[in-house]
Order: sequence, then structure tokens, then C-alpha cells
Amino acid sequence: MTQPTLGTDQIIQVGLVVADVEKTASAWSALLGLPMPEITLTDELDFARTEYKGAPTTARAKLAFFHMGQVDIELIEPVGEPSTWNDQLQQYGSGLHHIALEVAGMGERLKYLDGQGVKLVQRGEYVGGRYAYFDSHEQLGAVLELLEHDKS
Amino acid sequence: MTQPTLGTDQIIQVGLVVADVEKTASAWSALLGLPMPEITLTDELDFARTEYKGAPTTARAKLAFFHMGQVDIELIEPVGEPSTWNDQLQQYGSGLHHIALEVAGMGERLKYLDGQGVKLVQRGEYVGGRYAYFDSHEQLGAVLELLEHDKS
Repeated sequence: MTQPTLGTDQIIQVGLVVADVEKTASAWSALLGLPMPEITLTDELDFARTEYKGAPTTARAKLAFFHMGQVDIELIEPVGEPSTWNDQLQQYGSGLHHIALEVAGMGERLKYLDGQGVKLVQRGEYVGGRYAYFDSHEQLGAVLELLEHDKS
Repeated sequence: MTQPTLGTDQIIQVGLVVADVEKTASAWSALLGLPMPEITLTDELDFARTEYKGAPTTARAKLAFFHMGQVDIELIEPVGEPSTWNDQLQQYGSGLHHIALEVAGMGERLKYLDGQGVKLVQRGEYVGGRYAYFDSHEQLGAVLELLEHDKS
């Protein structure tokens, strides 16, 4: 039996879009006494197959993660455009971007949200899984991200 | 021995400022399959002793909480002004507002952040504890909230 809704109520990540990931990660590290994380670059289009509003985009991002209990803080510096990350940075500057839930069965969850009037904005692949951002701002007051990790 | 920095790296709450807490809570409840929470009103000034930028304010808020694992989602509808909640709603509309950590020794933590150039914006009391919001946007890309729960 499939689970209704998203099949989870566990927040596993909070994402921030920032203008300078090195600088912001340094500040988190210093203020909270956390180890300075590695800064990585998301994959190129041929692997990530990034889609923004239904079309391929070469936009990427530099990422840094802090592990803060059940929740990771993800700092995201947009590289290139178009992307939901770059949209937010241009429109509002640095700030909180999304709340992420981990789901199983991404395809089914996409259909569920679409049926609820919550539109997919951006999706892509990474080593070990895939993500999707939704324009849930009007309904929920925040961008929702779904993450699906491959079973190893 | 006192702990340096904030003495914690556990995120326990993510806050959103919204224009209509009943409507937004209904959407969270429906989309995520969560029970509809009680909606409460923060205490009046004489109990809450709410301070905004160092001066007492009669501003209050209507609140709703969803428990999503280690993290609570807090929906906040500003009632009156001035407050950090009302500022955000007027400037940006509904959206993510803060990340909260639970600390011990609020006074010491306030001094620590002040020494780091992170300014207190708003503070107040509630039954069982107290909160403080900081203007950490420039350094961290997000408003930080500290929560201190009284030992029962």
C-alpha cells in the first residue's frame, strides 16, 4: 500500500542561499564552534540533468553542509543561471531558502504535490540521489525540497 | 567550566512568518498529513516583557507548531507592531524567518553574541522559558533565535 501525502514528517535539512559560501561557512563555523566544512560544486548538466521550470539548465551551486542534529544546514552559492537559487539571491539577497524532507518514491510524490497544486520548480541528480524543489510558497509560506537517497 | 560559543549545535525549530496562520496551518496539515495544531496567542506585555530593539513593545503573535522530528515548524502571524515578525511580513511577505537553537544560560549567550558583533533584535518571555532573536543575517544569512527552557 502506498502512503498518502509525502510519507514522512521529518525535516532533515534547512537550506540558505548566500552570496559567498566560503565567507558564510566561516561565520557559521566561528560563531557556533563547528568544524569548517568542505565546499563542493554541484555536478555538471550531463550528470546532474538539472531542470529549471521544465528545461535543462547549466546552473550549478557551491555547497557547504553543517550537521546540526537531525538537521543539516546547507549553504548554497549559486553559480550561473537560471536556478531557484539564483532567483532568490537576485530578488532578496542572502537568506533562508528551503526546508527539506526525505522521501521514497520521488515520482509518486511529484504527482501527489502536482495534484495538490504545488508546482515543481527545479530538479536534479547527485551522486546517491536526487532532489526536487517546489513552489509551495503560497500554500506553506516556504519552498519545500524533497530528497530521495538511493538504497546502497 | 562554561562552554564557549553557544554550547549547542542542535537546531530545534524553524520559524516562518505568515499572513494568515489558520490558512497556512491548514495547508501544512493537509499537504503533509499532519494533525491540525492548536493556534495560540503570545502573552501580553506585562507577562511577556517583549522588547524590540531595546524598548518594550505591545506586539504579539498568533502561533501554530508542527512537530517534525527533532525540529518544530513554528508558524507566526504578527499581531500589532513593532516586532521582527511584522518587519519581515511588511518587507517580504510570508516566508522563512529564523532557525532556533536551545541554550542554557541566556544571559551569557547574549553577551557572547554581542561580543561577536551579532546584535539582539527582540526578546521575550513565555510560560516555561524565554527567547531572543538576533540580527545575524549579515554573518550567517539568517536570523538566529535562542530558546531557553526553564528546568522544571
